[in-house]
Amino acid sequence: MDSLHLDQHISHQFNEDLELLRTKLLEMGGLVEDQLRDAVKAIETADGGLAEKVRKTEDEVDKREMELDRESITVLARRQPAASDLRLVMMVTKATRDLERIGDEANKIAKMAQALNEEGGDPGRGYVELRHLARNVIRIVGVSLDAFARYDVEAAMEVVRGDKQIDTEYKTAVREMITYMMEDPRAITRVMNIMWALRALERIGDHARNIAEHVIYLVHGTDVRHTSISDIEKALQQKS
Amino acid sequence: MDSLHLDQHISHQFNEDLELLRTKLLEMGGLVEDQLRDAVKAIETADGGLAEKVRKTEDEVDKREMELDRESITVLARRQPAASDLRLVMMVTKATRDLERIGDEANKIAKMAQALNEEGGDPGRGYVELRHLARNVIRIVGVSLDAFARYDVEAAMEVVRGDKQIDTEYKTAVREMITYMMEDPRAITRVMNIMWALRALERIGDHARNIAEHVIYLVHGTDVRHTSISDIEKALQQKS
Repeated sequence: MDSLHLDQHISHQFNEDLELLRTKLLEMGGLVEDQLRDAVKAIETADGGLAEKVRKTEDEVDKREMELDRESITVLARRQPAASDLRLVMMVTKATRDLERIGDEANKIAKMAQALNEEGGDPGRGYVELRHLARNVIRIVGVSLDAFARYDVEAAMEVVRGDKQIDTEYKTAVREMITYMMEDPRAITRVMNIMWALRALERIGDHARNIAEHVIYLVHGTDVRHTSISDIEKALQQKS
Repeated sequence: MDSLHLDQHISHQFNEDLELLRTKLLEMGGLVEDQLRDAVKAIETADGGLAEKVRKTEDEVDKREMELDRESITVLARRQPAASDLRLVMMVTKATRDLERIGDEANKIAKMAQALNEEGGDPGRGYVELRHLARNVIRIVGVSLDAFARYDVEAAMEVVRGDKQIDTEYKTAVREMITYMMEDPRAITRVMNIMWALRALERIGDHARNIAEHVIYLVHGTDVRHTSISDIEKALQQKS
């Protein structure tokens, strides 16, 4: 092989390595999305089998997190990527952790589903708030993965805004849960389980926002963490 | 400069870069430790000024997180480190995030301190549990930073074990809080604030454990996340 072809060969393998990291991250994302959807469904339908399925998937998610991390480090050591390629590898190592955390929180929701199931009886108050928050959280997790798949900054911004709305809804829901507990102290244990599930959903929203911020960093090289939405919008306008 | 001296010069600069990352991570750790201690003290002494101080430090912690991340990427791009040097840089980017999260949770505790302060009156039940958990959490955060400073795997293992104990104590404390709420529904709002502070402490314990796991990875190159304590101990025995 002459030097030009060798270069092309190396560059081709390098692109394949990067593409593989991308694909694997999206696969892990799909797995975690399923976990989240199943966990929420397990609460809504009091389905213990579904909750068990979510808990079993956790090992697989953990395995993938460690695998992706190892592979990212191998790419760094072998290929010594620069500029946007380096940003992609760094983004992958960060986003895997967010995905693993989402899976972990989904797992907590599944545990709450099992606890609520064991108590039996009418789902009762708190379910409307939970379902509402869950729907919005599931949506932004999906959008954050789409944003990464398509390098879509506008979608990433939708996630950032969506997370802010979720935080507001979460706070309202918590206040309502406290009211329910005061009105019916016998329901405290049950309402606390819903409270923890709400909390897990709110955290998942934060992780979706993190992924969206990683996407913005990947595309524009701008670190928008700890930045208000209006300041992010200003920074992005200057870039385009 | 001849080639040997140029090499030495580059290698000297490289070591300085790595040492700077290490120092800055430990500085950030010290800042976050102060935040945590102040936040807990703000609850214990109902000191609103201290709570305000914790909240103000948050901006500084956020700034340092972004700075350290940027500098780590610069080192990766310029120096293309390998083996244990590469592990150090990766560890720094991961540990900064854990430290930032600890600061964020300390901030939540400070908010709870302010909320409890505004309600006024006797601290009441829950404070003993909170103080006990806080003492243990503050301890393992300190040990995790020491473990990093000294590359001390035994100290890291102490953190891993300490976090497990904290999880158990946290669960007991939560059950007690639920009992308090049932016994005195008028105290629900107050007890919920203590509950959130307990929750934040439990999360901080998890982040200290993460840092300890990073240290083990750094020293031995073994990824011990999602691994039971006895399996970690086995893996480490094989290494030594």
